[in-house]
Amino acid sequence: MIVVMQQGASRTEIEEVEELLREMGFQTHPIYGVERTVIGAIGDKRDGHYEVILNIPGVERIVPILKPYKLVAREVKPETSVIHVGNVAVGGPGLVVMAGPCAVESELQLLTTARLVKQGGGNILRGGAFKPRTSPYSFQGLEEEGLKYLAQAREVTGLPFVTEVVDTRDVELVARYADILQIGARNMQNFRLLKEVGEARRPVLLKRGLAATVEEWLMAAEYVAAAGNRDVILCERGIRTYDNGLRNTLDVSAVPMVKELSHLPVIVDPSHATGNYRMVPPLALASVAAGADGLMIEVHPEPARALCDGPQSLNPERFADLMVQVSRVARAVGRAYRSPRMKVAKQGRGQTG
Amino acid sequence: MIVVMQQGASRTEIEEVEELLREMGFQTHPIYGVERTVIGAIGDKRDGHYEVILNIPGVERIVPILKPYKLVAREVKPETSVIHVGNVAVGGPGLVVMAGPCAVESELQLLTTARLVKQGGGNILRGGAFKPRTSPYSFQGLEEEGLKYLAQAREVTGLPFVTEVVDTRDVELVARYADILQIGARNMQNFRLLKEVGEARRPVLLKRGLAATVEEWLMAAEYVAAAGNRDVILCERGIRTYDNGLRNTLDVSAVPMVKELSHLPVIVDPSHATGNYRMVPPLALASVAAGADGLMIEVHPEPARALCDGPQSLNPERFADLMVQVSRVARAVGRAYRSPRMKVAKQGRGQTG
Amino acid sequence: MIVVMQQGASRTEIEEVEELLREMGFQTHPIYGVERTVIGAIGDKRDGHYEVILNIPGVERIVPILKPYKLVAREVKPETSVIHVGNVAVGGPGLVVMAGPCAVESELQLLTTARLVKQGGGNILRGGAFKPRTSPYSFQGLEEEGLKYLAQAREVTGLPFVTEVVDTRDVELVARYADILQIGARNMQNFRLLKEVGEARRPVLLKRGLAATVEEWLMAAEYVAAAGNRDVILCERGIRTYDNGLRNTLDVSAVPMVKELSHLPVIVDPSHATGNYRMVPPLALASVAAGADGLMIEVHPEPARALCDGPQSLNPERFADLMVQVSRVARAVGRAYRSPRMKVAKQGRGQTG
Amino acid sequence: MIVVMQQGASRTEIEEVEELLREMGFQTHPIYGVERTVIGAIGDKRDGHYEVILNIPGVERIVPILKPYKLVAREVKPETSVIHVGNVAVGGPGLVVMAGPCAVESELQLLTTARLVKQGGGNILRGGAFKPRTSPYSFQGLEEEGLKYLAQAREVTGLPFVTEVVDTRDVELVARYADILQIGARNMQNFRLLKEVGEARRPVLLKRGLAATVEEWLMAAEYVAAAGNRDVILCERGIRTYDNGLRNTLDVSAVPMVKELSHLPVIVDPSHATGNYRMVPPLALASVAAGADGLMIEVHPEPARALCDGPQSLNPERFADLMVQVSRVARAVGRAYRSPRMKVAKQGRGQTG
Repeated sequence: MIVVMQQGASRTEIEEVEELLREMGFQTHPIYGVERTVIGAIGDKRDGHYEVILNIPGVERIVPILKPYKLVAREVKPETSVIHVGNVAVGGPGLVVMAGPCAVESELQLLTTARLVKQGGGNILRGGAFKPRTSPYSFQGLEEEGLKYLAQAREVTGLPFVTEVVDTRDVELVARYADILQIGARNMQNFRLLKEVGEARRPVLLKRGLAATVEEWLMAAEYVAAAGNRDVILCERGIRTYDNGLRNTLDVSAVPMVKELSHLPVIVDPSHATGNYRMVPPLALASVAAGADGLMIEVHPEPARALCDGPQSLNPERFADLMVQVSRVARAVGRAYRSPRMKVAKQGRGQTG
Repeated sequence: MIVVMQQGASRTEIEEVEELLREMGFQTHPIYGVERTVIGAIGDKRDGHYEVILNIPGVERIVPILKPYKLVAREVKPETSVIHVGNVAVGGPGLVVMAGPCAVESELQLLTTARLVKQGGGNILRGGAFKPRTSPYSFQGLEEEGLKYLAQAREVTGLPFVTEVVDTRDVELVARYADILQIGARNMQNFRLLKEVGEARRPVLLKRGLAATVEEWLMAAEYVAAAGNRDVILCERGIRTYDNGLRNTLDVSAVPMVKELSHLPVIVDPSHATGNYRMVPPLALASVAAGADGLMIEVHPEPARALCDGPQSLNPERFADLMVQVSRVARAVGRAYRSPRMKVAKQGRGQTG
Repeated sequence: MIVVMQQGASRTEIEEVEELLREMGFQTHPIYGVERTVIGAIGDKRDGHYEVILNIPGVERIVPILKPYKLVAREVKPETSVIHVGNVAVGGPGLVVMAGPCAVESELQLLTTARLVKQGGGNILRGGAFKPRTSPYSFQGLEEEGLKYLAQAREVTGLPFVTEVVDTRDVELVARYADILQIGARNMQNFRLLKEVGEARRPVLLKRGLAATVEEWLMAAEYVAAAGNRDVILCERGIRTYDNGLRNTLDVSAVPMVKELSHLPVIVDPSHATGNYRMVPPLALASVAAGADGLMIEVHPEPARALCDGPQSLNPERFADLMVQVSRVARAVGRAYRSPRMKVAKQGRGQTG
Repeated sequence: MIVVMQQGASRTEIEEVEELLREMGFQTHPIYGVERTVIGAIGDKRDGHYEVILNIPGVERIVPILKPYKLVAREVKPETSVIHVGNVAVGGPGLVVMAGPCAVESELQLLTTARLVKQGGGNILRGGAFKPRTSPYSFQGLEEEGLKYLAQAREVTGLPFVTEVVDTRDVELVARYADILQIGARNMQNFRLLKEVGEARRPVLLKRGLAATVEEWLMAAEYVAAAGNRDVILCERGIRTYDNGLRNTLDVSAVPMVKELSHLPVIVDPSHATGNYRMVPPLALASVAAGADGLMIEVHPEPARALCDGPQSLNPERFADLMVQVSRVARAVGRAYRSPRMKVAKQGRGQTG
């Protein structure tokens, strides 16, 4: 940490700061500059407590040098973590496609969608049983019934599934069914929930908060890791900016930023990032090109009848088309992924050639 | 709701929209404009489900007309709600000052602060027993022990207290001790927690989320109200903007906006809004001038030794000084509040005069 | 400046940084920490050129210590600057009220408004002759004709006037008529225009850019000052945030921030900050309470007929009412200002008493 | 336009609105809803003047239906505009790569860079002769001397060039030398400058303002087009958000948004969007995958010695590498571009095959 003193800070003020720093266990190294004195404070403190130094007269500001996270930092683990979910590896050479409806609405809707997702090229099923909705008057999800349909769909299609958990009291229940526990954007700093999934024995998909910095997002992952669960998959899903032309603004730069700062895999959800199905394909391709380890896409057999987030859902045809394009871009950036339709096309060509 | 069709939308597309709207229970009124057709849809639907219309070809966008909240809207209850906490009325003619430390650190620290708060002019004590901290390595609060010290301080000083609850599992426990249940900014859209405090028999202090619009904030209040608890006090505490010169940006315009849209009382927390004790006084005065029903101020007997948020805490002397200034501005805008020191000064003058 | 090296930066990398720093004229002081080395670089460099150090392998980031502005910093001139405009002093003990229409529309409209402004308590007239409009199809102002009407209104009422200049080619013309040259928010970083008004012999009113940090705003003032003109009045007028409930978000904290960092006076424009006449009074009062040196308020004799910004304009009655309230809050925070109506009231009371 | 009345608006208020609308030339269609009345106003008005309706008692808000821009809208011209610059076509099937240094520093620096840009695969040279710098103490550009070096480099390499113009007084001078006139982000709403380049006979590269919505950006393009110049190339270069981990946040969704709303071509500048050379490659690839018509990349022969924006500049090797990757992604999304190094590789393979 560096403590920057105000211009004209007195000798006594500087000494008071040094004394308090030493009391906290830091070694101090003052540098007397042209206009200001700065004090280098050496020591491994990440609890943020040192901020109280700002109350000492003569202090202008402090500059932390150490990153506030440890377990999730690439500095401590240079190779990217690969997280295994059933037979799918997230963070490895292959691109992972999680797809499905916003909400589980019925047994039929879910099974139909799961089959279409599989046919289109998804390798993990998504679907919400507990839905965090902005309005108390909106559909809130089928709860455990939804989890059962998801498990059934897994049985039928072989796709593992990810689903959101919104309450500490539900973690055990959801973990009994789900392959991945999703923490939604609005709960990214629900620290008790983070601790609770940190104690569960399931990988966690951690969505970035609507107004979270990359550092805060990694700190949320650190909460999960510090509670014992290192299997965290990060998911960029758009941030809130002044531009409200779309629901959110996809921060595609978060992908290379996370790659530089952390060893955790990171995927992108262009559906929530835009709220508009026409924008999903270009942003999905952009995410793959930027180096994302996977995608999360909302698919609904009949978007105009969806109970939730219909406007951003792809219909099955659009989803399958997109997966063909994703295959091409993935290959262009050296990533393994081939959609079933690409395979068919290839085989077709092979057979006739 | 208004459905705006794309330029050149076909007759068939327009009819398909009308049909779906009628199916949802709306009456439809198309208006054929110069370049576009818009369809007025009449009906009382607040569940957001109508958004699926965006999936119909030819639809450009939809414009909701009804506000999404009902119970908290001023439209349904023109007079401001007054919420009673002990002998304090929030939302009435008097200004309410909630003050105390960020975190309850010890019996002595809390009791000392509570006395200083009372002497300085606070009428509700604040203090965190469960602390949501960005880092898992920071002090997380004394939990139930902290609640006990708060209750003890109430006993001694007569001040009711407000304290944060961060987990659905703790609501009952906290409600057993506290006079007001605080929902922190990071939990503003923790909908399960909102429902849970909505079922408690304690007033709720609902902080605005870091990136919440005023409408989303009122929707969060609607969650609490819809669960049965109408005693919600709103608290503006700064929002996240591009300017990081201070910790957050106080949105003082939220005060008159809330007053226009809702009947709920609204207070301001300039301590979290700035993160800097030097900025607290001017912003506290600005908030009172803008019409806030109260203030929430962090006070610590020795800020440079605080375990949490020391840099934004006022020491007792600064707090008492501020309350004198607050008294003057409150009077200038027709609000009843007089700090003890003002009374002393008045009496002093009276005696000598 | 502090250069923070990456964890594991090599001896050679550290030496290369030190060499480049010395080449640039800095003295270097490395501090070897637990995980990282940081290098203190001592020297008075404000040209930003040192950023190239980021290209040297092993460098993580740099932390500037000196403020980038000099002439406008309070550090170099502790007392607030007072800027004299006719018989009005901006930055002194008195509060300054600039008021008038968004645009000069006609001789009659302007004269009428000027008289109403004076009667209501304004001491400087505002009015746009050159209007920067978002749409090329909107009214763009009366140009020199408008300046003539403003000069005429000054003749009649005795009020000096402020008006915007939007093109380097017009500075001389506008300066021939106006008492204060206004730089609009959209031109805050039109550096050529800043230099040009920096060479004019008129005070400059510098509005904050829609997305400018306080530091960038002070740097824009530094441009004017560096060109020779120290008479800069800053004007906060709302910033752009994610919340679009109002046109902009008034950053009232900018007032005490500017006061801490700079010796320049700062006023607030609540009309542009909100775009809504109902929000202007509470935010005007908040600004005065926060310590602003003045206000800039849009007034129109008949807002529903205004050619520009009608929705945010006060009618004469509302303006005069507001000035009474402003008088009260100004007095509460120790600021001299008394609206004519207050004087009348006082005199009336005096006579009957 | 739709006028939304407040709940409980009176008959008289509704009639007053209708009257004013008709006076303005609109036809009116009231719809009486469950809680509110809305009034559809039919007519082609884009001057924004109708906003004054907000001053009429009983009006809650207005909702514009027509887009405020005409000439640049895709609605009026469904096919994408192709803009010809020398032998390069922007907006056609080929991807365009503009590259070069932030600032022209010397004859040698520019010529060296121009050759490297050509070898690496750039087809338009970029370089600043007039530099808008945040600090008045930073290098401000070589001005006309810089333009001469750019013209010389064009002579030698055959690359047309784009350079920024920052003052209405310089437009003629810059247009005499340059192939494309660049309007920088800070001048996006310098409306006089927009008009002036609208009268020049050179294509215009219009960067998006730091806090401009896509709509405002298109309105700025409309200014240029309305002044007579339809050859506008849009350039996304990152927006300002709360996250300051990078210099700006690249809004990659602006690419498909522009494609949907306008017929103008759009390119992306990942260098300014990030301020960090390590982030340039992933974001360049993302932009191509999202459908951008081209890229603008900063290249410097020796970034650590650059006079401006060194930290975001690629060295020649990194630039050539990136162009190979760009070629692959371009092909994957059906876009023609092949970097020279790709051609060499292909030929090499061809010869050995």
